[in-house]
Amino acid sequence: MTVYTSIGIDSQAQTLFQKHQAAIERALQALAKREFYAHYPENDKEYGEEAKNNGAAVFQQQLGQFFSRLKQQGDINLKSEEVSPYLQEPLNITYPAYSSPEEAIEKALAAFAQWRKTTPEVRIGLLMEALETIKNHFFEIAYATMHTTGQAFIMSFQASGPHASDRALEALAMAFQALKAIPNEAIWEKPVGKTNVVVKKYYRAVPRGISLAIGCSTFPVWNSVPGIFASLATGNVVIVKPHPKAIYPLAIVVAILQTILAENGFDPHTIILAPDTSQAPFTKALAENPNIKIIDYTGSSAFGEYIESLPGKITFTEKAGVNSVIIDSTKDLNAMLQNLAFSVSLYSGQMCTCPQNFFIPRSGIKVGEAIVPYEEVVKQFVEAVKNLSTHPKAGPAICGAIQNENTYQRIQQASQLKAKVLLESQPIQNPEFPKARTATPLILEVEDRSLIAQEMFGPIVFIVPTESTEESIRLAKELAQQQGAISCGAYTTSEEIMNRIADEMAEAYTPVAFNLTGQVYINQNAAFSDFHVSGGNPAGNASFTDMAFVAKRFVVVESKVNAN
Amino acid sequence: MTVYTSIGIDSQAQTLFQKHQAAIERALQALAKREFYAHYPENDKEYGEEAKNNGAAVFQQQLGQFFSRLKQQGDINLKSEEVSPYLQEPLNITYPAYSSPEEAIEKALAAFAQWRKTTPEVRIGLLMEALETIKNHFFEIAYATMHTTGQAFIMSFQASGPHASDRALEALAMAFQALKAIPNEAIWEKPVGKTNVVVKKYYRAVPRGISLAIGCSTFPVWNSVPGIFASLATGNVVIVKPHPKAIYPLAIVVAILQTILAENGFDPHTIILAPDTSQAPFTKALAENPNIKIIDYTGSSAFGEYIESLPGKITFTEKAGVNSVIIDSTKDLNAMLQNLAFSVSLYSGQMCTCPQNFFIPRSGIKVGEAIVPYEEVVKQFVEAVKNLSTHPKAGPAICGAIQNENTYQRIQQASQLKAKVLLESQPIQNPEFPKARTATPLILEVEDRSLIAQEMFGPIVFIVPTESTEESIRLAKELAQQQGAISCGAYTTSEEIMNRIADEMAEAYTPVAFNLTGQVYINQNAAFSDFHVSGGNPAGNASFTDMAFVAKRFVVVESKVNAN
Repeated sequence: MTVYTSIGIDSQAQTLFQKHQAAIERALQALAKREFYAHYPENDKEYGEEAKNNGAAVFQQQLGQFFSRLKQQGDINLKSEEVSPYLQEPLNITYPAYSSPEEAIEKALAAFAQWRKTTPEVRIGLLMEALETIKNHFFEIAYATMHTTGQAFIMSFQASGPHASDRALEALAMAFQALKAIPNEAIWEKPVGKTNVVVKKYYRAVPRGISLAIGCSTFPVWNSVPGIFASLATGNVVIVKPHPKAIYPLAIVVAILQTILAENGFDPHTIILAPDTSQAPFTKALAENPNIKIIDYTGSSAFGEYIESLPGKITFTEKAGVNSVIIDSTKDLNAMLQNLAFSVSLYSGQMCTCPQNFFIPRSGIKVGEAIVPYEEVVKQFVEAVKNLSTHPKAGPAICGAIQNENTYQRIQQASQLKAKVLLESQPIQNPEFPKARTATPLILEVEDRSLIAQEMFGPIVFIVPTESTEESIRLAKELAQQQGAISCGAYTTSEEIMNRIADEMAEAYTPVAFNLTGQVYINQNAAFSDFHVSGGNPAGNASFTDMAFVAKRFVVVESKVNAN
Repeated sequence: MTVYTSIGIDSQAQTLFQKHQAAIERALQALAKREFYAHYPENDKEYGEEAKNNGAAVFQQQLGQFFSRLKQQGDINLKSEEVSPYLQEPLNITYPAYSSPEEAIEKALAAFAQWRKTTPEVRIGLLMEALETIKNHFFEIAYATMHTTGQAFIMSFQASGPHASDRALEALAMAFQALKAIPNEAIWEKPVGKTNVVVKKYYRAVPRGISLAIGCSTFPVWNSVPGIFASLATGNVVIVKPHPKAIYPLAIVVAILQTILAENGFDPHTIILAPDTSQAPFTKALAENPNIKIIDYTGSSAFGEYIESLPGKITFTEKAGVNSVIIDSTKDLNAMLQNLAFSVSLYSGQMCTCPQNFFIPRSGIKVGEAIVPYEEVVKQFVEAVKNLSTHPKAGPAICGAIQNENTYQRIQQASQLKAKVLLESQPIQNPEFPKARTATPLILEVEDRSLIAQEMFGPIVFIVPTESTEESIRLAKELAQQQGAISCGAYTTSEEIMNRIADEMAEAYTPVAFNLTGQVYINQNAAFSDFHVSGGNPAGNASFTDMAFVAKRFVVVESKVNAN
């Protein structure tokens, strides 16, 4: 008996696994120790000036053109709504697409009949080869990300390039480990009286079917590739439904995967790009289709809860949260405030890990042995944010642009809240992109506790004076439990308070970053070491990349044969 | 910083882990190879005659009495509805219980505040100690199981004793592996320019809260202990809501756990027995309570689907399925039929793994080189079932009794179906228990395909003539996909057909047992080797014991501290 009905092309693709096996093993080694590891260097300089120029050239050539690199057969051409937040002009790209979910699903099902029969090794080999190929397109992906999301260039490069690919590699390694945890075959020999009963057992990891990846507009690649690679690695086929305003970065990734698949004799429709428009959305029709078995989702809480409620689906969601910073004490006030100013400015607060609510005791905070009054802490924080975000060079490079008009309007509306404006938001002068949609952080001092209990997505910061660090902890915990939270920052010189904050926030399933200064920020989240979203509070039901993130994507099905 | 805020009694309990560590490691070794392994011998003789007599005596003393061994503080005494299927008399046991779900939940929450702070080692040590103590009560548990479920003595002993405890040990080992897959601490050192950014990271597995175990009436212990032990091992507290007609076996298990907990300084309410009555059920009120985060469920499909639909719960369900046997060819007709006759007779078809629909080609089957006509195969099968189930000694010992009146009535109603009766059901003479509710298997030949598409729980067998083995496979696969299936039997001498059946049934996420003869049966399911329920078809969303079965019960929450 064979465990897998092998398909003829397996042996060809098998060599790709041998080529990349060491990379998977190295990733698993990093994961076991949770140590620093980067398979893809985050420094763009290491990829050479030529790669950057080539990427820029390909990007420029793509603008206004049909995206011809996809190997999929769509039945329509879709004119995208993508608009550069820097140029405030449409990208005018047209994508091969599908007039209905059913068209895409039919293609995916045909591909699944083949892909489901491949071995884990064949899939992992192909997917690693795709990742290595994606590396050669990091700069085009960076420009595509920049001009859809509004991220500054360097974040666009890092987040959609090396960081995303490292997270995809992490998902591949985790999936490989989960798939190999069960042997293909076993001899089961049970003593019964004077003889042995012998049964030969065969185990196979059976994929669930079509996996749907619903992309977001701010981190289209970083948030989607872990689920895409985890599903493909476990034998599922994937339909990628990008956000209508951020198709291009994912289209490049899908095109590379399709090319590698086709080059190795597989149906390119093993992964399909299925863009839609905001006028004729079909995400719900896709999600509700009974052939969709797995859904990876990043986006709003309301839609995420709808996704989670769909019967019979395995869902992995990242929704919204309200992130807090608890300030109790510090040994270096300036280093703390510079770090926090960077955190709230980075990509203009459009990161899901960005802190929003800053809890500071009215009685002030301990800095070394001295007490610095609340007002002084706030004043220096406001100055730090102002200086950083309005800095002629640092401002545009850190803040980037505002992805969409709703976020921009939210800033204007927030300044009308019943709160004291500590720092007005203002446009950022960006010499390279004079028309960019930009805004420095708005800082409000908020007494009304009801105002802080919602995510104010964008560069909006609430300073919340509290009666004590105890109250700060209580508020941060309650908000995380009720609204969800993805990150939490805390500053304290007391070991006892540190333990208490970690304990309390653990009850709200929220990771805490303590006393960050220098070049490491609350917003950051490293592959192979940091879990992204805990999956335990309303901010999402899944985590990059825990065991459940890969284990639920397949089912172990056994066959046994009498061997007496 | 400490990873866990340790509690004072940890060190005392820590020694229990050392005592039992080798058992966990041995179990993990068996799991890695999926080899035969039994920590608890299934042969009742190995436990000594005294243990059996003691168990019988304790059982006799318990009948008609208050169940005083639980360490929990309930606010009411509940008179159970348990009735022995052998004596058809009530057990008349009274249990300490709770007048409402809230009473039980309040106690569980208080215990959770303590239990959540324990280390994995402390929990695993305590739970292994409990399993070793349960071993000393296997015979009382066996009698309690026998006189609630109707299982024959030897099945009662094995299923609720050694087999259940082995599955609990399996769950403990899997949980331990999952908990230890993430290190407690890591140093993350990232090169940035000429210096290194150093962050110390702490990871803790945070339990979800209260876990609810909803028991069933046929396998109260076997089906419940994997979830109970998996939840406790991962730091959750458990409320056990047994079936109103099968409380006693689980009460013994809970009492032992509570005793071990109390003896080691822990709140015995870490596990709570919360029985209800069919007149005043509170399973729904419990399940819907927002403090219940995890639900393990065994029972009907309709209620299981309701459980799965509850928002915000992690659910592990085993529902109903329709199991098939595909007969294509065999080298030994008699050996095959004897094996199948045993499978349909065992516990009178009240096992979730029991086959129901037998697909046999009208054109007959190949036996060695000869073709045996369909009619002859059926005739010999009917004879084999009749001879086995009416055998004066084997009949009662294999068939046991019918757990409840509904199942008994179903047999009578089934004989009225539009189908040809091949073997009438009849009472089994049981000299030891003359009043036992018994029934030999009813065998029907069914042409109407609509009749086979529902679970006929109990000793009801459908013989379905098909046009070919191809049709047999198609029907078995469709039924599994649409109605769910937990097992499938197949007999074929063709390697090619064997592969095809395994492939097709894998698409329906159904394990297949091929060519079983002698002392191994489709119904059986061995810890450390066999997965019980795949979790991929409508028969259930979970599997004993895959990674997801333990991984979803906790959340990894990280804290990191600047270490520059």
